[in-house]
Amino acid sequence: MANQSGIDIQYPKFGAGIWHFGRYVDRYATDGYGPPVTTLQAIERAGQVGELSVVDLTYPFDPPGLTVDEVAAALKSQDLRAIAVTPEIYTRRFSRGAFTNPDPQVRRAAVELVSEGAEAARRLGCDYVKLWPGQDGWDYPFQADHGELWRWSLDAVRELATAFPDLRFAIEYKPREPRNRMVFSSMAKTLLGIEEIGLPNVGVLLDFGHSLYGGESPADAARLAISRGRLFAIDVNDNYRGWDDDMVVGSVHLTETFEFFHALTDAGWDGVWQLDQFPFREDSVEAARAGIRVMKAIHRALAQVDRQALEAAQRAQDALGAQRIAQKALLTVMGEE
Amino acid sequence: MANQSGIDIQYPKFGAGIWHFGRYVDRYATDGYGPPVTTLQAIERAGQVGELSVVDLTYPFDPPGLTVDEVAAALKSQDLRAIAVTPEIYTRRFSRGAFTNPDPQVRRAAVELVSEGAEAARRLGCDYVKLWPGQDGWDYPFQADHGELWRWSLDAVRELATAFPDLRFAIEYKPREPRNRMVFSSMAKTLLGIEEIGLPNVGVLLDFGHSLYGGESPADAARLAISRGRLFAIDVNDNYRGWDDDMVVGSVHLTETFEFFHALTDAGWDGVWQLDQFPFREDSVEAARAGIRVMKAIHRALAQVDRQALEAAQRAQDALGAQRIAQKALLTVMGEE
Amino acid sequence: MANQSGIDIQYPKFGAGIWHFGRYVDRYATDGYGPPVTTLQAIERAGQVGELSVVDLTYPFDPPGLTVDEVAAALKSQDLRAIAVTPEIYTRRFSRGAFTNPDPQVRRAAVELVSEGAEAARRLGCDYVKLWPGQDGWDYPFQADHGELWRWSLDAVRELATAFPDLRFAIEYKPREPRNRMVFSSMAKTLLGIEEIGLPNVGVLLDFGHSLYGGESPADAARLAISRGRLFAIDVNDNYRGWDDDMVVGSVHLTETFEFFHALTDAGWDGVWQLDQFPFREDSVEAARAGIRVMKAIHRALAQVDRQALEAAQRAQDALGAQRIAQKALLTVMGEE
Amino acid sequence: MANQSGIDIQYPKFGAGIWHFGRYVDRYATDGYGPPVTTLQAIERAGQVGELSVVDLTYPFDPPGLTVDEVAAALKSQDLRAIAVTPEIYTRRFSRGAFTNPDPQVRRAAVELVSEGAEAARRLGCDYVKLWPGQDGWDYPFQADHGELWRWSLDAVRELATAFPDLRFAIEYKPREPRNRMVFSSMAKTLLGIEEIGLPNVGVLLDFGHSLYGGESPADAARLAISRGRLFAIDVNDNYRGWDDDMVVGSVHLTETFEFFHALTDAGWDGVWQLDQFPFREDSVEAARAGIRVMKAIHRALAQVDRQALEAAQRAQDALGAQRIAQKALLTVMGEE
Repeated sequence: MANQSGIDIQYPKFGAGIWHFGRYVDRYATDGYGPPVTTLQAIERAGQVGELSVVDLTYPFDPPGLTVDEVAAALKSQDLRAIAVTPEIYTRRFSRGAFTNPDPQVRRAAVELVSEGAEAARRLGCDYVKLWPGQDGWDYPFQADHGELWRWSLDAVRELATAFPDLRFAIEYKPREPRNRMVFSSMAKTLLGIEEIGLPNVGVLLDFGHSLYGGESPADAARLAISRGRLFAIDVNDNYRGWDDDMVVGSVHLTETFEFFHALTDAGWDGVWQLDQFPFREDSVEAARAGIRVMKAIHRALAQVDRQALEAAQRAQDALGAQRIAQKALLTVMGEE
Repeated sequence: MANQSGIDIQYPKFGAGIWHFGRYVDRYATDGYGPPVTTLQAIERAGQVGELSVVDLTYPFDPPGLTVDEVAAALKSQDLRAIAVTPEIYTRRFSRGAFTNPDPQVRRAAVELVSEGAEAARRLGCDYVKLWPGQDGWDYPFQADHGELWRWSLDAVRELATAFPDLRFAIEYKPREPRNRMVFSSMAKTLLGIEEIGLPNVGVLLDFGHSLYGGESPADAARLAISRGRLFAIDVNDNYRGWDDDMVVGSVHLTETFEFFHALTDAGWDGVWQLDQFPFREDSVEAARAGIRVMKAIHRALAQVDRQALEAAQRAQDALGAQRIAQKALLTVMGEE
Repeated sequence: MANQSGIDIQYPKFGAGIWHFGRYVDRYATDGYGPPVTTLQAIERAGQVGELSVVDLTYPFDPPGLTVDEVAAALKSQDLRAIAVTPEIYTRRFSRGAFTNPDPQVRRAAVELVSEGAEAARRLGCDYVKLWPGQDGWDYPFQADHGELWRWSLDAVRELATAFPDLRFAIEYKPREPRNRMVFSSMAKTLLGIEEIGLPNVGVLLDFGHSLYGGESPADAARLAISRGRLFAIDVNDNYRGWDDDMVVGSVHLTETFEFFHALTDAGWDGVWQLDQFPFREDSVEAARAGIRVMKAIHRALAQVDRQALEAAQRAQDALGAQRIAQKALLTVMGEE
Repeated sequence: MANQSGIDIQYPKFGAGIWHFGRYVDRYATDGYGPPVTTLQAIERAGQVGELSVVDLTYPFDPPGLTVDEVAAALKSQDLRAIAVTPEIYTRRFSRGAFTNPDPQVRRAAVELVSEGAEAARRLGCDYVKLWPGQDGWDYPFQADHGELWRWSLDAVRELATAFPDLRFAIEYKPREPRNRMVFSSMAKTLLGIEEIGLPNVGVLLDFGHSLYGGESPADAARLAISRGRLFAIDVNDNYRGWDDDMVVGSVHLTETFEFFHALTDAGWDGVWQLDQFPFREDSVEAARAGIRVMKAIHRALAQVDRQALEAAQRAQDALGAQRIAQKALLTVMGEE
């Protein structure tokens, strides 16, 4: 693609969690925001977006009998690749915890399900297995022995990373939801755990929205992980800073989204720009396109940033100067489309 | 019942939303936190609590064919009464809005569903019909003409209250969820709308948790509604102030829960003390008992409050003095049980 | 001024609170973020900005002896006009409350100070007297009789508005700070109070940041006030949604700031676009210029909005469509500068 | 002291930051919530409380000429000991940063001021030097090179801890205020930095309120620090979870305060229970007594906890059971006083 100036723009690869194209349910619309969607149907929708290169697949596939080969074929037919597998360790069976379930059998089942998912990931040639232990944590004061939950969490990840040394495991942290308080709740806490695990194939998936509503500056969190070689993947979306709204990228926090991608590219991080949106009431294909449209605009804007001036402003910690440079770059690009 | 001093304690009536005993689903545990529960099964569980007098029933009943008479019989067999009917204007059909749906046919369907629910409420001898238009609002900046949504909301409530002058309609406000931003979002905004509607049979259901995480002081919100004769009902629960966690009453904010009930009783409000808890991972009968246990302790504590001293402290706006009086009453009650 | 297309742009009038150019103090840098600044010095700085037409003046002036005539002369020399006077009913004397102080003498002193300020406003030809009772409210559970505080607040405003029928009084609401909970805490609560006061010369000053971190959609709050003829003035700034950070306009929430100004212009509201920023660590003249630069860009962007398309999208409550239209307008204008 | 059962209660040592007894200022009551208070006057007030054993002293002392010997004598006369010195690296000179100031001379001045404070701490026989770099961080997106701020922060602490190997340095983390975003923002991030520094005499001061409004579970944060031998000190207070309100201990979050102290004692942590309250509008001596009264009640309640039952409940992650045990202990204690 070429912009107005005729210069070819080399966009990054775009990706999406396959659940973006699935069926949303919540505690009120218990009949779902739409009809059920199988894995193959979701892959087809992902293909329809037209600009996605990769998807992150939840595991087990739906319906249960669906094989890795069938999924691989479906991906191929849509010109997609599986970047990751996300084992569903947060459904009913794991609702009182996966790696931290009080029942040792369920803890074992969680490790086994992830192992199965890892086998699938290996066969699909994924970049990483995503670990999102959303049910691991606690709801009430006094409910848990926090130290024990922490140890169990690290032990499970260590066991998995040791069992699959050829694969990479990316922990996606989140402050809360579905559990009121989650074990891997912030970038720093996750990195602390990873250092304690002490294996090279464990890293972090930074979800922009989780970081934002967790009170972090996502750009800061990204740099911290990159500086330790642990930023394995990112997800992007947006929210109102109080909850994981999983809105379309850039719909609320354009400037911080821009800052986040600036931090990534500035640090030489060249992974996939990946969507984790939940368009409950929108068409999921159109919502993905909307997110990509914004990411492309941001990518073009990054090329407009006067980096020397920005560095000078940051060296002086000059807020007004830095903002001016960023806005100048950001607010000139949408017209080129 | 008698306390240590041998004095009979006359507790208020306790109630619960029937969904307390239903099946919880969220966007992650899409297979539900437990198996499906029918209306009759939920009523039976409500009965098992042993201390509930009334329930608030969602409508339509589940399964669809279930009649008002069957429900009435089930309630009677459990020594329960229906205090309210809550029409489900927040399921898939209404996911883009009930009274504010962009499609006039859906808006009509919402009014019709509430009307059906109101008929059922009338036959069940309920105190009020609850209106909880949880899907009415917007998600994104620029998405909506806020003025139009406001008018549609008031028009629908006015139409319903006019059509059923013998019934009372209680609007339950909530800042957000499932919609990112809801039309009836706060006590003051709801009262403003009610004044504009101008009918005597429209009031407010104050949910303690909604008020708390909406940044209100629930005691203040309650007094405001009472002063205008609009506090039709209350729901109680608890949360971490960032989301509607619907935790067990008093589990986090004991003091403000105590203040809330003090405000109610002090103002002579004598309605039902009603639970709206979502014990996702707990036994629902036990969770209801836990909430009632706390409410009973609070009720006993209210009798311990040195009201004259508290009034003097409040007249002087003496924070330390008022807190001391409240804590003295609150922190002595559990042993009496 | 003319833009690239050679079309004259008629910007709105810009204004600022005079405190923008004053000296900031907080509880840590108790020696101030800079040296003291007198009223006349602050006016001079406001003049240096070069694009301000009006200022909102705190009263009493500093130093105490400074006369209205001297202030008027200083304003004139800087080509500025006083749009409002803000009586300082939140300093030490009023730290336990102004209109709601437990001491009747202090309550009286608050009304008297506002009256003095109103006289000054009259002589200066202001548009309104701003009421910001920042110390009116409570800090602790159980501390206050909320109903009494509410009545006292309304009584005081009613008394003032009755005493000065030729002036307008604009209540600036805020959820909290300096008081942990404030009486006039939201748009709806303030409108509810204003309706109860029942006088035509009482309205609201909507501070964008207060609305935002109070959980409102500022565009929605603006429309509600306008629909009742009560939006007397606005202040703009930005924050991280958890506190009144008073950052430079548009630095965090560009899209919602744009939506806010769109709502104002769409409703035909043509008041002053006024800054309430606290650039603690920045040059205050430069910070004001930065805010105005963003507001001018937003103003130009408003002209780019495809209003017919936006109306259609809003009628359909089409989030993706509406966002696309808004972004298209917003993200093309900064380059024209 | 003996309780109702005649058993002697051995309370922990209580302490307070000396600023508790100072003069509060904020950006509105710029004339202060009361008259100025010197260090010696504050020490006298601390002594009046009657139950404090130690204080944490800000440095430089006020007025500037006051010597360590004079302070030591004043402490002795009040039967107090200095547990810590807190160098004031957050006043005007450091308002754009202390360890992270863009100006290397100011960074140097910060290290020098802390060094001076450390000398004073050594002479006073303190347990630790508190590092609270409240101005270190950033306000705006794009303002800072986060990696550089992180390195500068660690370098400064490492330099200090190396220069004073006989002293301990406790970093007090805080999410924000006065800076919009602070470098040492959470327990995990601070521990991550401390591990990187790699010296034994650097640890954490956990402020309960900072942890709470930062979204942590303070009990969890405490255990994490203890497990790594880094919990050097604690401060307690309370807030509404959105800001560092520094309210009286237990005034809002009784249960989580109780859980926090339970976690400390359960882990064998036996440090000072220390107040960091800002009673802007209350008598500071009375406010300290109120906080201690609550802490003593909590201490007595801890003795009532059925630890075996609680352990069993926590092993089962039984929220209802654990809450019941905790409430039973907590809600029976005030009467014993």
